[in-house]
Amino acid sequence: MEWTREQRYLPYNKWDAETLLKLQAQADNSSYQLNYHIRPSSGLLNDPNGFSYYNNHWHVFYQSYPFGAVHGLKSWVHLESCDLVHWQNKGLALGADTKYDSHGAYSGSATVIDDKLFLMYTGNVRDQNWQRISYQNGATMDKNGIVTKLAAPLIYAPAHVTEHFRDPQLLKHRDAYYVLLGAQDKTTLSGKVAVFKSKDLKNWEDLGYLDFSPETMGYMIECPNLVFIDDKPVLIFCPQGLDKNVANYDNIYPNMYVVGNKLKFDAARMETKQTAPINLDDGFDVYATQAFNAPDGKAYAISWVGLPDMTYPTDEEGWANCFSQVKELSLDEQNRLVQRPVPAMADLRQAGQVVKAEKAINGRQILVDNASRSYELKLTIPKGQAGTLHLVANQDLSESLQLKFATGDAAQLVVDRAHSGIQFASDYGFTRQIDLTANEDLELDIFVDNSLFEIFVNGGLKVLTGRFFGSQANNQIAIQGTTKEELAFRGTYWRIDHI
Amino acid sequence: MEWTREQRYLPYNKWDAETLLKLQAQADNSSYQLNYHIRPSSGLLNDPNGFSYYNNHWHVFYQSYPFGAVHGLKSWVHLESCDLVHWQNKGLALGADTKYDSHGAYSGSATVIDDKLFLMYTGNVRDQNWQRISYQNGATMDKNGIVTKLAAPLIYAPAHVTEHFRDPQLLKHRDAYYVLLGAQDKTTLSGKVAVFKSKDLKNWEDLGYLDFSPETMGYMIECPNLVFIDDKPVLIFCPQGLDKNVANYDNIYPNMYVVGNKLKFDAARMETKQTAPINLDDGFDVYATQAFNAPDGKAYAISWVGLPDMTYPTDEEGWANCFSQVKELSLDEQNRLVQRPVPAMADLRQAGQVVKAEKAINGRQILVDNASRSYELKLTIPKGQAGTLHLVANQDLSESLQLKFATGDAAQLVVDRAHSGIQFASDYGFTRQIDLTANEDLELDIFVDNSLFEIFVNGGLKVLTGRFFGSQANNQIAIQGTTKEELAFRGTYWRIDHI
Repeated sequence: MEWTREQRYLPYNKWDAETLLKLQAQADNSSYQLNYHIRPSSGLLNDPNGFSYYNNHWHVFYQSYPFGAVHGLKSWVHLESCDLVHWQNKGLALGADTKYDSHGAYSGSATVIDDKLFLMYTGNVRDQNWQRISYQNGATMDKNGIVTKLAAPLIYAPAHVTEHFRDPQLLKHRDAYYVLLGAQDKTTLSGKVAVFKSKDLKNWEDLGYLDFSPETMGYMIECPNLVFIDDKPVLIFCPQGLDKNVANYDNIYPNMYVVGNKLKFDAARMETKQTAPINLDDGFDVYATQAFNAPDGKAYAISWVGLPDMTYPTDEEGWANCFSQVKELSLDEQNRLVQRPVPAMADLRQAGQVVKAEKAINGRQILVDNASRSYELKLTIPKGQAGTLHLVANQDLSESLQLKFATGDAAQLVVDRAHSGIQFASDYGFTRQIDLTANEDLELDIFVDNSLFEIFVNGGLKVLTGRFFGSQANNQIAIQGTTKEELAFRGTYWRIDHI
Repeated sequence: MEWTREQRYLPYNKWDAETLLKLQAQADNSSYQLNYHIRPSSGLLNDPNGFSYYNNHWHVFYQSYPFGAVHGLKSWVHLESCDLVHWQNKGLALGADTKYDSHGAYSGSATVIDDKLFLMYTGNVRDQNWQRISYQNGATMDKNGIVTKLAAPLIYAPAHVTEHFRDPQLLKHRDAYYVLLGAQDKTTLSGKVAVFKSKDLKNWEDLGYLDFSPETMGYMIECPNLVFIDDKPVLIFCPQGLDKNVANYDNIYPNMYVVGNKLKFDAARMETKQTAPINLDDGFDVYATQAFNAPDGKAYAISWVGLPDMTYPTDEEGWANCFSQVKELSLDEQNRLVQRPVPAMADLRQAGQVVKAEKAINGRQILVDNASRSYELKLTIPKGQAGTLHLVANQDLSESLQLKFATGDAAQLVVDRAHSGIQFASDYGFTRQIDLTANEDLELDIFVDNSLFEIFVNGGLKVLTGRFFGSQANNQIAIQGTTKEELAFRGTYWRIDHI
């Protein structure tokens, strides 16, 4: 199906309900459907929005286009949780229905203000010449889920940015409100984080661009997020078009972070010793991560697993993408970001089963036969070994998601999805790799959810996330030795059911 | 909102998608929404359909009208489960879109035939004079959830029935297929169960009406279901307009059962010693129960919790009704039907908490303060006591769902929902009552799910099910003594989370 601009921006009330019901059923019945991650009811999901804690529940929204796997007229769909793992879909919360968001209720954040959840979002508008105008709008959600939009935008684009000005993160800091915005500078056409300040959410002061690096951050920054971890500011953002000499990445667009020492909000400056941004995720598909500090001070993040300007195999089924699991963020003693599953993820574990590899010298050993399509697999591979772990594999291992590990002198981990099923995103390669410290044990905490993998390495110092689209019949977990030595390791496999 | 006939039968493709998304969000956000029972995505849910086991999963469908809490153009919505407790919604499966079901894909059953799930359902058609024609249609569902309708009806209404001829249960018995159908006899205008037989699903023999009682079964029988328990046939059915002298009931329409000794299918006769049908549920809202024998021979039942021709408080929110939990059926040594929760219901239990009442002489005692809105409460009340258990109660117990028990000489259990919240169905009374054996311990296994209660009495010998619509703030469980004696009992309370 060719999607015309007119179709993509058709108001939701011009679509018929039967089409929507069929699209929902098509997504519900997909053999690639996720079992314990947030996914769209139909159509396309992209950025997480409004990740927050309010009224004794966790909240998150997803950018939604319900009528197909394309970027059309966007709205916010609301989900609610008691534990950051089990989410209840609360449906359409914020649509594109005013003159300040006529072409999409784009991404934004949520902050508790005066007993309501205050949503700040980008209203996307196209004028008669299809020129984009970006408004930064406000809305409130009450305890019954009723959303009320403010009558006028909070912030209009200043003269020094192009029409690419979006993704507001509203933060309360001391006695003022601050907003971070992704922006493109009009003069240099480079990516920036714009900062605004207000005492009353009405009068806004333009504090200029956030100074956090001497480098140029590509041509546009999307989805800036600031969280505080151990009192240190951490900026998570997507610098589109970043020069790979500044920081290397393999995906079409990167999602990166910088850990600062100190934030001087009013001066719009984050001091940092970090010379270059670092990839938040070393896998294939993480983008638009949204992070926030919960009332208890902890920092949590959730990501879109999907990338702009890419197609995925489920597009043909009229739906696409999912969210990552929520991760708790911390810093290690070297100020490196650590991402860990939240405690309630362990509640999903069903009937643990010990897995162990022994003497798989140049051969293969089945670790779990007839595995579920959804599971957690936690392993420790001792130092000095090398081999390939085959996930969601067929009988002869010709089809599988491969994790090639080496824990000796040249220590590394390579994830290869070339043989995991339908090939896609070929322009960006089929492997992702991280270097490991030589001669150290390797800890892997692997989550598989039918068409999604999330691999936590060494307690969350690295995470590799990606999609894959293999046959439902592929249900083995196996190990293959690639050295002359003995392979020996132990771990646990837990089935995970649909939540 | 007044619903015209035209609105109610408007094809789904004449409704707009925005309306549907808003109705779905409205249902999702309802403060009366169910947490662990099947409920409609939007609009009205009624009969369970196609309850079956196929492709290693349990299946059930619900009669759906997605656009409001009215009986409009009906379709089947599909759900799938691994354990009869956690259900995945698979969306619209069978719509009203052919000349043999133009005014509704009405109720029916599902049977595994030739590696597919064979759906048999009533196609509701209205002619130009709005005269009803009922076709008994077939369709198949494959392992990918793709439904294909047969080109022509399987069974046309015979001359001896009126237009009220529906709800086929297709059964394979020995080397033939049999269909039971709810019917109204044209001559006597009385309720009947029509029986048909076929060797090939094409040529059908009319075996006449099932002979199972000398009494007249009201003016219409809906939803007949036959299951075998310990080789005994059990007929579950809804005799509308049944004379209360034949068997008493309190609801607008009853849902009853008869246990037979022997079924002579080809003679259309079920021999029974039971002189009158018995209420399947002694509560307020159970109807249209569907039961079937699983491949392991066990019999399971699931019910619509809702009644025809009634309004419920959520109607104003554009949605209505839910399903009961699935119950496993058995017979006790006196051939009485026993209904029990399925084993996986126990998996829902979170953090058990002992509850006990002591010395609540004419006073009240809080058993659980700050209880969840969803829970299981299992109690044994020793013989010789009397009192009132207050569920979902406010602080002074002026609002609560009351269970008045007496376990002495005049032993009985009364459920009173008069003070449980919004009053509804007032014409049919606010209490339901069952007699108990004098001077015996009373075992109660109570399930509460926000706006639904299911009370299993004495191991499932009686079940009382009903809806209630109280304030979200009512979260106490308390006991009140009504005798001069000491009250003493123990039990366990388990919180149940959203599934």
